[in-house]
Amino acid sequence: MDYNVLKGTHDIIDEEAYNYSYIEEILTNIAWLYDFKEYRVPVIEKSELYQRSVGEGSDIVRKEMYTFEDKGNRLITLRPEFTAGIIRSMINSKFLVTRDLPLKAFYCGPVFRYERPQLGRYRQFNQFGIEIVGSNSYLRDVECIAFGYTALKMLGFKNLELRINTLGDKFSRENYKKALVNYFSKHINEMCNDCKERLKLNPLRILDCKVLDDQEIIKGAPLMKNYLTLDSKTRFENVLEALDIMGIPYIEDDTLVRGLDYYSDTVFEFHYTSKNGNNYGAIGAGGHYSDLVKELGGPVLSGVGLSFGIERLYNILKDDNKLQKKDKIDLYIAPIGNVDINYIMSIVFDVRNNGYSCEINLESKSITSSIKKAVRANSKYLLIIGEDEMKDGIYTLKNLETQEQLDVYEPDLIKVLDALYQEEEDKYCDLTESINELKDEEDEEDEEEIEKE
Amino acid sequence: MDYNVLKGTHDIIDEEAYNYSYIEEILTNIAWLYDFKEYRVPVIEKSELYQRSVGEGSDIVRKEMYTFEDKGNRLITLRPEFTAGIIRSMINSKFLVTRDLPLKAFYCGPVFRYERPQLGRYRQFNQFGIEIVGSNSYLRDVECIAFGYTALKMLGFKNLELRINTLGDKFSRENYKKALVNYFSKHINEMCNDCKERLKLNPLRILDCKVLDDQEIIKGAPLMKNYLTLDSKTRFENVLEALDIMGIPYIEDDTLVRGLDYYSDTVFEFHYTSKNGNNYGAIGAGGHYSDLVKELGGPVLSGVGLSFGIERLYNILKDDNKLQKKDKIDLYIAPIGNVDINYIMSIVFDVRNNGYSCEINLESKSITSSIKKAVRANSKYLLIIGEDEMKDGIYTLKNLETQEQLDVYEPDLIKVLDALYQEEEDKYCDLTESINELKDEEDEEDEEEIEKE
Repeated sequence: MDYNVLKGTHDIIDEEAYNYSYIEEILTNIAWLYDFKEYRVPVIEKSELYQRSVGEGSDIVRKEMYTFEDKGNRLITLRPEFTAGIIRSMINSKFLVTRDLPLKAFYCGPVFRYERPQLGRYRQFNQFGIEIVGSNSYLRDVECIAFGYTALKMLGFKNLELRINTLGDKFSRENYKKALVNYFSKHINEMCNDCKERLKLNPLRILDCKVLDDQEIIKGAPLMKNYLTLDSKTRFENVLEALDIMGIPYIEDDTLVRGLDYYSDTVFEFHYTSKNGNNYGAIGAGGHYSDLVKELGGPVLSGVGLSFGIERLYNILKDDNKLQKKDKIDLYIAPIGNVDINYIMSIVFDVRNNGYSCEINLESKSITSSIKKAVRANSKYLLIIGEDEMKDGIYTLKNLETQEQLDVYEPDLIKVLDALYQEEEDKYCDLTESINELKDEEDEEDEEEIEKE
Repeated sequence: MDYNVLKGTHDIIDEEAYNYSYIEEILTNIAWLYDFKEYRVPVIEKSELYQRSVGEGSDIVRKEMYTFEDKGNRLITLRPEFTAGIIRSMINSKFLVTRDLPLKAFYCGPVFRYERPQLGRYRQFNQFGIEIVGSNSYLRDVECIAFGYTALKMLGFKNLELRINTLGDKFSRENYKKALVNYFSKHINEMCNDCKERLKLNPLRILDCKVLDDQEIIKGAPLMKNYLTLDSKTRFENVLEALDIMGIPYIEDDTLVRGLDYYSDTVFEFHYTSKNGNNYGAIGAGGHYSDLVKELGGPVLSGVGLSFGIERLYNILKDDNKLQKKDKIDLYIAPIGNVDINYIMSIVFDVRNNGYSCEINLESKSITSSIKKAVRANSKYLLIIGEDEMKDGIYTLKNLETQEQLDVYEPDLIKVLDALYQEEEDKYCDLTESINELKDEEDEEDEEEIEKE
């Protein structure tokens, strides 16, 4: 029997889990600054939810969903994305009619797509994202983009490229789709089978096609911007003007459509190129939607959303050496020889209850083993308790970084730790400081670059 | 079309999500103090994993698993619990042979059981738990219990009852099972169909039966403690002695077995009775296991684990009024009348980048609407920007708690916020303080009680 993980899934353990938490914590903290509230929706939902929202024409619904019947013969799907579930929860909770609008949601958790597994692509992967639902202001689109921009900067991404486009409103899109059908009908026989189906279901999807020969044909297709209504054109210009004023750089990208059927007007992607020139493509993306809420049985309200793939962020940050080192513990306790181990365990309990992370070697009574284990556990201090020490109640506390030692009388242990750690207590405390430091750092680098010029 | 959640699943949104995070943060922080590392294992696993570990005789495997075939004809199960996946990941990663033992894992996330939905029981619910794998020391069992005890205390549970029992080692259990088969064979015709099946698969499971008539018969069954080997007996006595020394109260409970096949020796549950006398039953439970690691293809190593159902903890803490109020934001910005909204949006961006949570009313330009929204958003301050204010660059900043106002020159906004918030900066910072406060509080209450006596 082979008990490995399923193809396309992966364990996130040890330093990796530590850094996933770190990434999610940064994203969550920024979400709080933007007044987003967490929404946790179920992993399992009725299949119709996604068929209706993500769209019958999308690759996700056509090929990639984990769908099955439960023991009650309900057709169930493992969520392939969050937006549909979030909107459904906003409708079910009646928040869209009882609360101040817009509702601002953030989410974080696993999604499931049955894709061909390849480097950096998983069948179960994690997304973090936001949704702003119930406002017509174009500035909510801008807010969504600003969140993405700030979040990626805070994580350490420096050569960001924001690509932005508009898909126009419904009228713009209908006109554009007609133009696309008109154009692609002439070439469809030379194109891939997927495109043949897309032409029937949603010709916009053809623009996403990855087949090389098809891309040549796509280059000649009509452009969205020539089919926009005046409203959509003005809305897009307003978005760009606000981004200018806020100092968020962008590139207008005519070819940018998104792989989900529900988008309209603003769509955007963040692209990243690493210091050594690796182009990682889109590391976050989103867009505005007008009909999705109504489509799922809610009022006529539009929304805008953005999502990141955590695996993708993690892998790039790791490649770029921008992740934290592994975590530390405060104290490692080494019981040596024939000592009252139950009593020592009560010291461990006490140390932990006083807020210090602590591990004890219960598996060996050798000092050499304990020192090695303490160092590998990345402990700052080692407390040695041997038979003689136990009699006197005076133990040796060793700083494993400086090798300094001192004798500690047992009743003073917590006070001594308090004194030693006092100066480090605030280290994880202040997000503001870390934002400012990051800004200062960037300013310094910018200044350095200016000086070089 | 009905887009409600699936039966037995639920959305966790708004204040509820906020408090789920709060609960998980407390549990996670304590896990760090105990030197546990996060393990994130997939939601989907091969079905055999659970058949083998949780056991063919358990209710979970027999009736409650979400199992289906994926598009590649693999038999897949949505995890009904975490332990099996964690052990699998420890084996696959080779950490059990390359790292210092024991490995100490904590986990948090959704699990899935197709049960009959009832009050407080869900088909998708969240678990937080720990596993310590690769040590034979009975003190690891004690550590696991101490973690649970501290965690529940920190969350605010005061009338905790730790029930503890031993299932003995393999030899003890085999003798005991024989005694059970012998006893129940005489009564099995009067018992429920489930028990008839349990008698064949695992007679220990009969002790869990909830059918009233069966419970009468179960009362007369032989007791585990009379079938223990000397090793198991000594081990259990050592566990109890260590708990005594650490000041963790417990009740020995002969009838306590656990619903999973892999447990041996120590098993335990935390029971809780609220102030008004509601008995909530088990709110956390766990036990020691000897054969699970080997069973899943790993080395001969034992482990011990504990898990909490977050939904259960949340519902009780909510009933007992022990949860935090909803979150606040720092600043709400009210643009009034015909102002340059793009420019004001850049102020919002700036405020957030400086670490202050901020919301803006983009949906209305009326002052009345903005004040109402600011109060409902639980904002501490309101910044009013009208046409005249915008000309001068001097805005009105109002403290919504005290109703005090002051004029703020735009370039000074961040400095003013910094000054106003300085004293509150450390409020979420120090876990130690909150532990100590909690202790002080309890001490005070204890003292009060003593005084009353």
